[in-house]
Amino acid sequence: MSAQLNQRILSELESLVLIDPHTHINPLDPASHTLADILGYHYYTELAHSAGLSRNQIEEPGLDPKEKVRRLVPKLADIENTAQFSWLIEMCQAFFGFEEDRITLSNWESLYDTAAKKMAQPDWEEQVLKISKLEQIFLTNNFDDPLTGFDTKRYVPCLRTDDLVFQLSKQEVRDRLTKATGIELGGVASLNQAIGKLFDHFVANNAKACAISLPPDFEPVRVDAAAADVILQAVLSRRELSTDEQQTLSRFVFWTLAEHCADRKLPFDLMIGVNRRVYEAGVFQGQDLFDQRVSLIQYKALFNAFPQVTFPVSVLAQISNQELVSYSWIFPNVVTNGHWWYSNIPAYIEIDTRGRLQAVPRTKQIGYYSDMYKLEFALPKFGMYRRILAKVLTEDFVIERRWPEERAVALGQQVLRGNVESIFGVNGY
Amino acid sequence: MSAQLNQRILSELESLVLIDPHTHINPLDPASHTLADILGYHYYTELAHSAGLSRNQIEEPGLDPKEKVRRLVPKLADIENTAQFSWLIEMCQAFFGFEEDRITLSNWESLYDTAAKKMAQPDWEEQVLKISKLEQIFLTNNFDDPLTGFDTKRYVPCLRTDDLVFQLSKQEVRDRLTKATGIELGGVASLNQAIGKLFDHFVANNAKACAISLPPDFEPVRVDAAAADVILQAVLSRRELSTDEQQTLSRFVFWTLAEHCADRKLPFDLMIGVNRRVYEAGVFQGQDLFDQRVSLIQYKALFNAFPQVTFPVSVLAQISNQELVSYSWIFPNVVTNGHWWYSNIPAYIEIDTRGRLQAVPRTKQIGYYSDMYKLEFALPKFGMYRRILAKVLTEDFVIERRWPEERAVALGQQVLRGNVESIFGVNGY
Amino acid sequence: MSAQLNQRILSELESLVLIDPHTHINPLDPASHTLADILGYHYYTELAHSAGLSRNQIEEPGLDPKEKVRRLVPKLADIENTAQFSWLIEMCQAFFGFEEDRITLSNWESLYDTAAKKMAQPDWEEQVLKISKLEQIFLTNNFDDPLTGFDTKRYVPCLRTDDLVFQLSKQEVRDRLTKATGIELGGVASLNQAIGKLFDHFVANNAKACAISLPPDFEPVRVDAAAADVILQAVLSRRELSTDEQQTLSRFVFWTLAEHCADRKLPFDLMIGVNRRVYEAGVFQGQDLFDQRVSLIQYKALFNAFPQVTFPVSVLAQISNQELVSYSWIFPNVVTNGHWWYSNIPAYIEIDTRGRLQAVPRTKQIGYYSDMYKLEFALPKFGMYRRILAKVLTEDFVIERRWPEERAVALGQQVLRGNVESIFGVNGY
Repeated sequence: MSAQLNQRILSELESLVLIDPHTHINPLDPASHTLADILGYHYYTELAHSAGLSRNQIEEPGLDPKEKVRRLVPKLADIENTAQFSWLIEMCQAFFGFEEDRITLSNWESLYDTAAKKMAQPDWEEQVLKISKLEQIFLTNNFDDPLTGFDTKRYVPCLRTDDLVFQLSKQEVRDRLTKATGIELGGVASLNQAIGKLFDHFVANNAKACAISLPPDFEPVRVDAAAADVILQAVLSRRELSTDEQQTLSRFVFWTLAEHCADRKLPFDLMIGVNRRVYEAGVFQGQDLFDQRVSLIQYKALFNAFPQVTFPVSVLAQISNQELVSYSWIFPNVVTNGHWWYSNIPAYIEIDTRGRLQAVPRTKQIGYYSDMYKLEFALPKFGMYRRILAKVLTEDFVIERRWPEERAVALGQQVLRGNVESIFGVNGY
Repeated sequence: MSAQLNQRILSELESLVLIDPHTHINPLDPASHTLADILGYHYYTELAHSAGLSRNQIEEPGLDPKEKVRRLVPKLADIENTAQFSWLIEMCQAFFGFEEDRITLSNWESLYDTAAKKMAQPDWEEQVLKISKLEQIFLTNNFDDPLTGFDTKRYVPCLRTDDLVFQLSKQEVRDRLTKATGIELGGVASLNQAIGKLFDHFVANNAKACAISLPPDFEPVRVDAAAADVILQAVLSRRELSTDEQQTLSRFVFWTLAEHCADRKLPFDLMIGVNRRVYEAGVFQGQDLFDQRVSLIQYKALFNAFPQVTFPVSVLAQISNQELVSYSWIFPNVVTNGHWWYSNIPAYIEIDTRGRLQAVPRTKQIGYYSDMYKLEFALPKFGMYRRILAKVLTEDFVIERRWPEERAVALGQQVLRGNVESIFGVNGY
Repeated sequence: MSAQLNQRILSELESLVLIDPHTHINPLDPASHTLADILGYHYYTELAHSAGLSRNQIEEPGLDPKEKVRRLVPKLADIENTAQFSWLIEMCQAFFGFEEDRITLSNWESLYDTAAKKMAQPDWEEQVLKISKLEQIFLTNNFDDPLTGFDTKRYVPCLRTDDLVFQLSKQEVRDRLTKATGIELGGVASLNQAIGKLFDHFVANNAKACAISLPPDFEPVRVDAAAADVILQAVLSRRELSTDEQQTLSRFVFWTLAEHCADRKLPFDLMIGVNRRVYEAGVFQGQDLFDQRVSLIQYKALFNAFPQVTFPVSVLAQISNQELVSYSWIFPNVVTNGHWWYSNIPAYIEIDTRGRLQAVPRTKQIGYYSDMYKLEFALPKFGMYRRILAKVLTEDFVIERRWPEERAVALGQQVLRGNVESIFGVNGY
């Protein structure tokens, strides 16, 4: 009976057409061309490498896609227990009619060929979106992205600001900024002007958020413009910055971004807690980890200073979820956002979903985003989340709190889609 | 079958008359007068504010209680998923015969009026206690509370010491201390004497505990009296203290309190981990949050120095629960105490209850306290806890460990009530 | 149906003969002689002490074993809720035919006598191993252990290095090193040579791992040999080291050990997070606790510097498990190892097992070790783990992911035994 109830709730959630509020899709090439695009996703390459496949094997220059898959396939047996592997199988079954539950040396090639044929169909992108019940996809664009050549109603731009905050002392980044805005950096005034131009450009192209990923030790505070200017001048005269100076500059740029978010009424997605390049010999995108000794108290000044900016917050460490729940419960401008990266496995999603649904206003929870690089991943990732969400709604709301089914379904729909619309100001397609 | 088993165990736990070992009840005015007293609880005002209601709307000076409720009601829809909302509905159903599961603009007024009528009955306090199966309620009294005008057997005093430890450098606090004790502060000797007088007064009035809430960075150590005296002299001559001096003074006062607890055989409730006024624009009592980077290792010196003092410890961050379990498992004088504030939702209570019941001696666990400001809250809060406790007893003890039902029930009774009696030395009423 | 499924999977796991990859067994006296050997395990003495039994009662010099048990028995009622107590009952039932579920003043003596009689049988060790389905047991040997007098195929040596890393400034430790190796310490060169001799000796005697337990603040980095030499000279001339010097010396010795592990292809077991002697008045081995503010980022340099060394990592704090999962997911040389000490209770094992099985390659997980001091403990401890593993396999793999039963069983077998063989290079007996 409870299993049937759960199934009914899940079916309702599965019928919902979604907006994916955070991805790394390239809108000029959104879907995969071969299985290598899927297996090349860092989740598989890094797990295969972790299980013993050398980086050379995976990242050999000029490697043929089919050969790459052939090399990865034998390692899949070692990672078939992972949630990530279950996404792979689910994609192969849903998109390519694959009927087995393992990919092996004896079946991979026909799977590869079938997939390649499907992916070569001119409407493959449309097929994937339709099968996945997906109508809008948020992007993560570099600040100097021209945002041209695609439908910004379908692929919604989002201004990624990591480079501006953490790499501005690099000549190459400043050159990109000048090229994108036509403004030569002379000091903090022109920096502010250049950033304003970026926001103009993004907002004019339907951008719905500003976004950044942040290391665990980052603590944003307001920095005096004059103090920042001294440092920026040092950068411009190519002096190496001290760690303290670099930190001050990062804080200044970050704060400036928040000010522009306030001006443009753009939500500012904070993805808190990643340490880059911890495992330097790792595969592409498989080098980052974290230090769980982080607290949202580090964002106290920010959350207080910008009551008019909505901060959808993602945390990398699962143990940060209770702070996220509590800060979202107290601060009107903090909302919970998805289940990020190392926290994006069922064991952690379930605990985190439970905590959020029990203590954060229902209007302030963005249930899930796929974080995908290729369109095919939305289906299994949202599928995983919907199953967990249905389970929590069934157990905690219909059974424990005796909510009528349709009320629980409505809560699920709001968390899955409604809040994406209201928080980012999008309305479907 | 397991559902029936769970229900039988729950029924046994529900039949137990309770002692609530930590509340903020005003014994001169313990129960609510209108629904505004209930909805004015910070859990609702802060959640409504978090969901978008402005503080001005909620805290307008001179606001009529009924108007306050009218303003809050529309926001309830946004927080109806929360555990806190479920308490509200449960109170309305149990106390006022409310039969719906939502409070809306169309039904709130009759609910308000019904409640007001009930609450106006002269024996309302008695009714609430009886319906709630509650016979004794611990208070949290300011150090200068006269403790008069109420039955200290029913409303058991508890000496709250936050002001002494953290605000003694304020003239107003020292004036209150002098007024309460008749002792003029001249240095650490007279401070010690004054604190002794407070303990005399409280113990003479049936106080059963000393209590304090502590910020995450507090680390109690013994401070040399001479060193403390220098700082106290500075305070008395109205010099501003440095952060270090303030910390030393706090440590000295705290340690002095522990010494008096040892002398009077009073348990010292430690509520560890709150940062005050993190969100300064928040509603009354809705401004505090936490930094989860805290460890009970900070209390090593204290726990070792006072083996004769029982420390019932509450932790604010859920992730601190395992340390609490482990320290209670090792230190004879550390006991687990309730599920505090941001950890007081079913998802966290269940995990924490499980860990405690599996690893801490059964005699050293105080299952729950309501932390309530008005009497009506004990019913839904203890109700929530009892359901979770029954679930854990059913699953982990009767099913997994094959305990006879009555043995599991006895464990539940001990944790719910027996340990409150033995740890605080109370015996019911 | 799900209960029967779970039972079938459990039965399969229970039929497996095991290798226990981490214990504190004394191979010259592996099994218990009386119930005092079992109840003398620190889990019981520390819990009894925590529940109120004085250390004097437990550790009185010259105390007769039977009298010791008699003193502990009355306290068992207070700790019968704990997982540790459930192990005790399970041992008494499995090994001594005990049919009750409590040990009391009225039944303990006959239990004691029955046990003593059984334990006196000449083949008791063999009986325990057979009943426990255990064929190989890893030891934790002091660096100067002669490793003689026992079958190193059954009792597999493991080089414990805590003393070398943290106590080398003690004359007594250096004397032991000289005695064990014949090498007089004159500086880092001879230290390195001496450590090399220890490795020679251990490897020649079938050692399969090097192991160490580490405090939460330890952060291994490479230390310049010249800098270390200066400090070692200071030690040799009996100058007291500063905290910084001690830390540098510890780091140097630790790094040297890792180099030898690389040379000998020995896994290096890291047991991360214990603070020693936190409760100094505690019973023997019942004084250690932890500070959960630790991160595997502290091991970044180590994991990067030694790709050829496998690091089976145990973490003491449950909240460290997600970092362990993530670091094992990324670093090829990091593997998850068991459920250590304060994390070794069902509530935490279940959460941790779930996370690991969902995100770490199946080849990189050592499911469990008993950490036992006497052979009898393997049975209930592995029993507890097998039940949890069966539950997770049933729920997360067979039900949720629709794996065939035999596939889930194979995963369980690999985690329980297969990986012990492959990671440590043992092959059963």
